[in-house]
Amino acid sequence: MNDLVFVSLNRRKVDEVCAILAMYSIRVSVANVKRKEVQSDSLEEIALEGARYAASLILRPVIIEDAGLFIKSLNGFPGPYSSYVFKTIGNKGILRLLEGVEDRSAVFKSVVAYCKPGHEPLCFLGEAEGWISNSERGESWGFDPIFIPKEGEGMTYAEMGYLRKNMISHRKKALEKFAHWYLNQVK
Amino acid sequence: MNDLVFVSLNRRKVDEVCAILAMYSIRVSVANVKRKEVQSDSLEEIALEGARYAASLILRPVIIEDAGLFIKSLNGFPGPYSSYVFKTIGNKGILRLLEGVEDRSAVFKSVVAYCKPGHEPLCFLGEAEGWISNSERGESWGFDPIFIPKEGEGMTYAEMGYLRKNMISHRKKALEKFAHWYLNQVK
Repeated sequence: MNDLVFVSLNRRKVDEVCAILAMYSIRVSVANVKRKEVQSDSLEEIALEGARYAASLILRPVIIEDAGLFIKSLNGFPGPYSSYVFKTIGNKGILRLLEGVEDRSAVFKSVVAYCKPGHEPLCFLGEAEGWISNSERGESWGFDPIFIPKEGEGMTYAEMGYLRKNMISHRKKALEKFAHWYLNQVK
Repeated sequence: MNDLVFVSLNRRKVDEVCAILAMYSIRVSVANVKRKEVQSDSLEEIALEGARYAASLILRPVIIEDAGLFIKSLNGFPGPYSSYVFKTIGNKGILRLLEGVEDRSAVFKSVVAYCKPGHEPLCFLGEAEGWISNSERGESWGFDPIFIPKEGEGMTYAEMGYLRKNMISHRKKALEKFAHWYLNQVK
C-alpha cells in the first residue's frame, strides 16, 4: 500500500501531510518533482492538473496538495496564489491590507488531488473557517501566524503547534476525506 | 499576411495590441480562446506555454501577450499575477501596501509570445520603468491609473491616453520587437 507518491517541494508541507496520513496508516514516498501549475482562480483545477501531470511523469499513483487562504473582504485574495503572495508581501502585507477593516473573516482551503497514471484525477476539499489576526502570533511558516481557525479557541495556527493544528486544519480535513476514500479502494 | 491570430479574452488589451500592430501594417484576427496558463514567477514561461497551447488548438500561427507590474519594494509583487491581484485588491490595495514607502519604483513588463503550430514558441520582452503614484489618476483599466512611466512627463498611463501611451508603453516595446522580427520572416 506504500506505492503512493506525495509530490511536493515544500519540506514543511511534507512533514504535515506525512504526519496526518500516518493517522490513517497510509505511508507515502515523497518526490521532489517541480510541478507545472496552471494559473486558475480554482484551487481544484490547479491540483487536478498538477496531479495528472505528476502521475504521467512519475508513472505511479500520486497525491499533491494545494492550499490557499481566501480573505472575504479582499475578494478572496490571496486565494490560489497564496504561496507567491507570501513570498512577496508576506504576512505584513496581508495585515496592512486589512488595517481598519472590520470583516476579517477568511477560509483556509486545502485540495488533495489523487491521480493514477492514465486515469482521471480526483480531488478532495477541506476547509477551515476563521479570521485574520491583528498581528503575527507564534512561529511557523506561511500564513499560520495570522490565521485563527474557528475551532482554535482564539489561537492562530502557529500558536496551536502542529499536533493540535493537525487535528482540525483544512489540510487535515482534505486528507481525511482522501484517506477514507483511498482505504476503501485498496481494501 | 493576416493569418496571424491574437489570442486574448481582454477587449481592452485587444484594442491596444491591434492599434500598435497597425503601426507596422500587421493585421491580426482575434480569437477568444480560454487559455491554460501555467503558474510561474516568469512571465516569459507563462506566455511561451500559452502560445504553444493556443497554436496547437487553433492550428494557425498565434501571438499572445502577457503583462505584469513588478514593484521593487514589494519584491516584484504583483508580477505575473497582476490580473488576479487587480481583480481582488485592485489599485487601492497596491496603494495601501505602499503607504509611507519611499521606494515606489516599478517596472511594467510585457511579453509577446509567437508560436506556429508544431514549432517552438518565441518571445519578445518590452519593459517600461517608472513609479507608482500616490493616488489613482486618470480613467483607464488595470494599473494604468497608478503607473507613471519614466518617459511620461509625470503623467500616469491613464492620464496620457492611448495614443501617447501606445508610443512608449511596455506593450509597445514588446510588440515593436516582435514586429521587426515578424516582418523580416514574412518578407
